[in-house]
Amino acid sequence: MDNKTNRDWKDKLHEIIYEADTPAGKLFDLILLVAILASIVLVMLESVKSIDARFHTFLDISEWIITILFTIEYIARIVSVKRPIKYITSFYGIIDLLSTIPKYLSIIFAGTHALVALRALRLLRVFRILKLVRFLGASNNLVLALKASRAKISVFLFAVVIIAVIIGTIMYLVEGEENGFTNIPKSVYWCIVTLTTVGFGDITPQTPIGQFIASLVMILGYGIIAVPTGIVSAEYTAQNKPKEAPKDNPVHVNTQCCVNCLNEKHQDGAQFCYKCGCELHHD
Amino acid sequence: MDNKTNRDWKDKLHEIIYEADTPAGKLFDLILLVAILASIVLVMLESVKSIDARFHTFLDISEWIITILFTIEYIARIVSVKRPIKYITSFYGIIDLLSTIPKYLSIIFAGTHALVALRALRLLRVFRILKLVRFLGASNNLVLALKASRAKISVFLFAVVIIAVIIGTIMYLVEGEENGFTNIPKSVYWCIVTLTTVGFGDITPQTPIGQFIASLVMILGYGIIAVPTGIVSAEYTAQNKPKEAPKDNPVHVNTQCCVNCLNEKHQDGAQFCYKCGCELHHD
Amino acid sequence: MDNKTNRDWKDKLHEIIYEADTPAGKLFDLILLVAILASIVLVMLESVKSIDARFHTFLDISEWIITILFTIEYIARIVSVKRPIKYITSFYGIIDLLSTIPKYLSIIFAGTHALVALRALRLLRVFRILKLVRFLGASNNLVLALKASRAKISVFLFAVVIIAVIIGTIMYLVEGEENGFTNIPKSVYWCIVTLTTVGFGDITPQTPIGQFIASLVMILGYGIIAVPTGIVSAEYTAQNKPKEAPKDNPVHVNTQCCVNCLNEKHQDGAQFCYKCGCELHHD
Amino acid sequence: MDNKTNRDWKDKLHEIIYEADTPAGKLFDLILLVAILASIVLVMLESVKSIDARFHTFLDISEWIITILFTIEYIARIVSVKRPIKYITSFYGIIDLLSTIPKYLSIIFAGTHALVALRALRLLRVFRILKLVRFLGASNNLVLALKASRAKISVFLFAVVIIAVIIGTIMYLVEGEENGFTNIPKSVYWCIVTLTTVGFGDITPQTPIGQFIASLVMILGYGIIAVPTGIVSAEYTAQNKPKEAPKDNPVHVNTQCCVNCLNEKHQDGAQFCYKCGCELHHD
Repeated sequence: MDNKTNRDWKDKLHEIIYEADTPAGKLFDLILLVAILASIVLVMLESVKSIDARFHTFLDISEWIITILFTIEYIARIVSVKRPIKYITSFYGIIDLLSTIPKYLSIIFAGTHALVALRALRLLRVFRILKLVRFLGASNNLVLALKASRAKISVFLFAVVIIAVIIGTIMYLVEGEENGFTNIPKSVYWCIVTLTTVGFGDITPQTPIGQFIASLVMILGYGIIAVPTGIVSAEYTAQNKPKEAPKDNPVHVNTQCCVNCLNEKHQDGAQFCYKCGCELHHD
Repeated sequence: MDNKTNRDWKDKLHEIIYEADTPAGKLFDLILLVAILASIVLVMLESVKSIDARFHTFLDISEWIITILFTIEYIARIVSVKRPIKYITSFYGIIDLLSTIPKYLSIIFAGTHALVALRALRLLRVFRILKLVRFLGASNNLVLALKASRAKISVFLFAVVIIAVIIGTIMYLVEGEENGFTNIPKSVYWCIVTLTTVGFGDITPQTPIGQFIASLVMILGYGIIAVPTGIVSAEYTAQNKPKEAPKDNPVHVNTQCCVNCLNEKHQDGAQFCYKCGCELHHD
Repeated sequence: MDNKTNRDWKDKLHEIIYEADTPAGKLFDLILLVAILASIVLVMLESVKSIDARFHTFLDISEWIITILFTIEYIARIVSVKRPIKYITSFYGIIDLLSTIPKYLSIIFAGTHALVALRALRLLRVFRILKLVRFLGASNNLVLALKASRAKISVFLFAVVIIAVIIGTIMYLVEGEENGFTNIPKSVYWCIVTLTTVGFGDITPQTPIGQFIASLVMILGYGIIAVPTGIVSAEYTAQNKPKEAPKDNPVHVNTQCCVNCLNEKHQDGAQFCYKCGCELHHD
Repeated sequence: MDNKTNRDWKDKLHEIIYEADTPAGKLFDLILLVAILASIVLVMLESVKSIDARFHTFLDISEWIITILFTIEYIARIVSVKRPIKYITSFYGIIDLLSTIPKYLSIIFAGTHALVALRALRLLRVFRILKLVRFLGASNNLVLALKASRAKISVFLFAVVIIAVIIGTIMYLVEGEENGFTNIPKSVYWCIVTLTTVGFGDITPQTPIGQFIASLVMILGYGIIAVPTGIVSAEYTAQNKPKEAPKDNPVHVNTQCCVNCLNEKHQDGAQFCYKCGCELHHD
C-alpha cells in the first residue's frame, strides 16, 4: 500500500516533469523555460567585463540559485522515471547533467574558461520544452514543408559548397597571397562569404580580373538564392492545399511520455506505451 | 438654433479632420501629410552641421510655421470631438501633443538634444493618414497574407535568435577576445549580422576554425532565408485564389469616425456608431 | 514617278531602321546593338587611367568611328521619317543626339569631364533595341507578373523608407556623432544599408544598445525581404495558371512603326496606323 | 574464344567504370568520389603555408598515391572503351588527363604555381559521378523547374548588368576618383556589390548625393531580388502540380553507356545504342 502511494507520487512527478498535458506540467515547463533563459542571460552578462566587475557578487549568487534549481530538477527527473540509467545516458540526460555541474566544477577548477561552453549548453534544453510549440499548431504545415524540402535543400547546399571550392581555388590563383587570399581554404571562405551575399569585406579582390570574377560570383549568388526559396514556397503551397492533413506523416502533438522507457511518440488516447507496454497516465 | 449651428460646424470640422470620405477630408489629409513630411525633412536637415550653419534662420522659421500649424490642428482636433479627454489620452492624441511641443520647450530648455527624438515622433503621425492607403485597395490581399503568416514568421524569427545565441557563444569561445569577439552579447550580435547576410565586417573571424564555423553559419543563413519567403508566398497565393474575399477577416476601408467615442471600425452604410449609438455623418 | 521611287527608298530605310520584322531590320538592330555595347566598353576603358595612357590613340580613333556611325544613323533616322521634328523632339531622338555629339563637343571643350555622362547615355539606347526581347516571348508572363505586382511593391518599398527614417533617427540619438552617425540623413543611409542586408560596414554601431537595435533591424530586414518575393511569386503563379493569355493587358510583340507619327503599338496584321491612318509597310 | 573472354572482361570493366546500375559500378563511383574529394582536400591543405611546412612529406606521398590511382583509372577507362580516341578527346577525357598529370609535371617543372590550377580541375570530375544524384530522384522536379526558368533568369540577370553599368557610370561621375570610384569598371563592380546586397564595404560612397543614390540602388536591389525567386517558385509549383511527369522533357535516370560511342542517353530497357547500334550490356 505504501509502495502504491510511493508509485502514485512518482507517477504524479513524472507527469509534471515530462508531460505538458496537465496545468501543473505546463506550469513546470514555463518555470523551467524562464530559468533556462535567465541562466543564459547570466552567462552572457558574466562575459561582459564591465558588468562582471560591477555586479560580480550578484551574478555569482544568481548562478548558484540557478544551479541548485537545476540540481533539484535533475534529481527529480532521475527519481520519477522507472529506469534512471536510461534517462541519465539519454541525450537530454547528459545535457541536463552538463548544464548543472559547471558551477560545482568552478570551485575545483577556478577560472577555467571552457566551463562557459558547458553552461551555454543549457540553451539546448530549450528544445525539450519546445514540444510546447507543438500546441501552437500554427506551424505544422511549415514543419511538413521543411521536412519535404530537406533533401532538395541539402543537394542545393552541397552544390553551393562545390561551386565555392572551384571558384575559391580560381580566386587564389588570380589574386594571390599579396591580396589577402593567402591559401585555398581562406579563398573558399571568401567565396562563401560572397556567394551568400554576406560580404564582410575583410578580404576583397584587388585586381581587375579578380573583381570581374567576384562580380560574376555575386550575380550567380543573387540568382541561386532563388532556389531554396522556390523549393520551400512550392512545398509549403503544396502542404497548404489539401486541407485534410496528410495521414502518413503527421506532426506529433501528444506530449505523453512513458515512465518506463521514456518513449514519447504516443498516439492520442493511448493507454499503454506502444513500445514497452507500460501503462500511461492521464488526468 | 445657435447650438444646432455650432454642432453642425463642429461636425463639419470633425468630418474634415477625422474622415477621408469627402473631398475636403482628403485635401486635409493630403496637406497634413505634406506638412508632416516637410517637418521630418526639417529635422533631418537641422541635424546636418553644415546645412544648419548656413540656413539656421530659415530652418528656425520653417520649424515655427510647422509648429503653429500643428498647434492649430491639435486644437481643432480637441474642439471637434465630443469627448476631448478621450482624444487627448488616446495614442494619437499623445503623439500629436508630443510632436507639437518640442519647439515651445526649446525656448525654455535651449539646446536640449533629446527634443529631436520628440520631433522624430512626428513620423508616427503618418500612419494615421495611411488609412488613405486603404483606398488604394491594392494591398488588401497582401495585408491578409501578412496577418496569416505573422504567427509562423514570429516562430521562425524566435528560432533564428536561439540559433544566434548558441552559435554566438561558440564563436566567443573559439575566437576569443583578441579577435574582436570581446563578450557573448557582441558574439551574438556578430552572429545575427552574419546569419541575416548583412555582414558589416566590423568583427570578422580570424582563426581557421572560426572561419569554418562562419562559413557554416552563412550557408545556414542562405538556406533559412527561404523560410519566411516561402511562408509569405504560400499565404499570399492562398489569399489570391478565392476571388470572393474571406468574410471573417476583411480589411476595413470605411474611414468614418464617431464624433463621440472616436471609434473607427464602422460598417459601410452605418448610420450610428455601433459602440455608443451616436449618429455618424455622411455627405 | 521619281517621287514615288524616292518615297519607296525612304520607306525601305524606315522599315530597316525602325522595325525588326524583316531580316534587314533585324540585322540593323544587331549591328546597332554591337556598336552601342562597343561604345560603352570604350567609355569604360577610357576611364581606366593605365589603359587610357597606353592605348589613347586607339581609343580615340575607335571613338571617332563610333561617333561617325552614330551620326550616319541619326541622319538616316531623320531622313526616313515623314515628320523629322517629331523624331528629333522625341525621347529617343534626344538620347540619339546626346549620345552622338560628345566627341564633336570634345574638340571645342577639350577635357570636359561631364561629357562622359553624355556618352554613358548611349546605354539607354539599348532599351530601344530591346523590343527585340519581345520576340523571345519567354518573359511575357514575367512582365505581366511584374506589372501586376508593381503597385504592391511600391507600397512595400515606401513602408521600408518610413521604417528606415524612424530607426535612423533613433540610431542617431543612441549612437551619436562620435560613432559615425554624424547626422540623421547618414543614419537613415546606414539603416537602409542594414535593412536591405547590404551591410557595407563603413558605419557600424559601437554602443551595446546600438548593436541591440541593429540586431532587431537586421532580423526585421530578414523577415520583410519575404514580402516582395512573396508578391512576385504569387502574381507569377497566378499569371502562369490560365494558359489563355489575359486579353486586357497583352505584351506587345509587333514591331511595326508608323512612318508618319512614329506610333508603335500596332496590332498584328494592321494595314494602317491606328492613330494617323498612314499606311504601314509589310514585306 | 580467347577474344570472346577478352571482350567479356572489357565489357565487365566498362560496366563497372562507366555505369552505375550494378553494385560494382556503384562501389567504383563511390571510391572515385572519395578519392576526388581527398585529392581536393590535399590541394587545399598544401596551399596553407603552416600545414605544408609541417606535413610536407605526408602530403607529397598522399598526392603520389592519388595520382597513381587516377593513372590506373585513366588507363582502365581507355582500355574498356572500343574507341579510345573518342574518350581521350572527349570533355571528361581531357579533364581526367589534366587532373592526373600535374604531379608528373611537377618533377620536370618544380614549383610551378599554375599546376595547382590543373589539380583543382579534379573537382569537375565530381560532376561525372553526380549522375549518381539522379538515383536520389528527389530533385527531378527541381531540375525541371530550373530548366524551365533558365531563360527568364538569364534575361533578368542581363537586365541587372545593364542597370549596374548605368548606375556605375553615374556613381563614377558623382563620387569621383578621390572617394575610391577610380574608374567606371570599378564603379560597376561597386554597383554589383551593392545591388546584390553583398556590400563588401571596400568602396563606399562618401558624398551625401552618392549615399542617396546608393540608398536607391539598395532598395532597388532589395525589390528585384524578388524576381528570380518568384520565377523559380512559380515554375517549381507548376512542375509539382501535374503528378504525371511531363513526357517531353524527362530527367534521364538511365546510366547505361555505349561501349562504342560513349553515348549516354539510352532509354530504359534499350538493347542497342540508339546512335551507333552497338549492343548495350545488362546485368
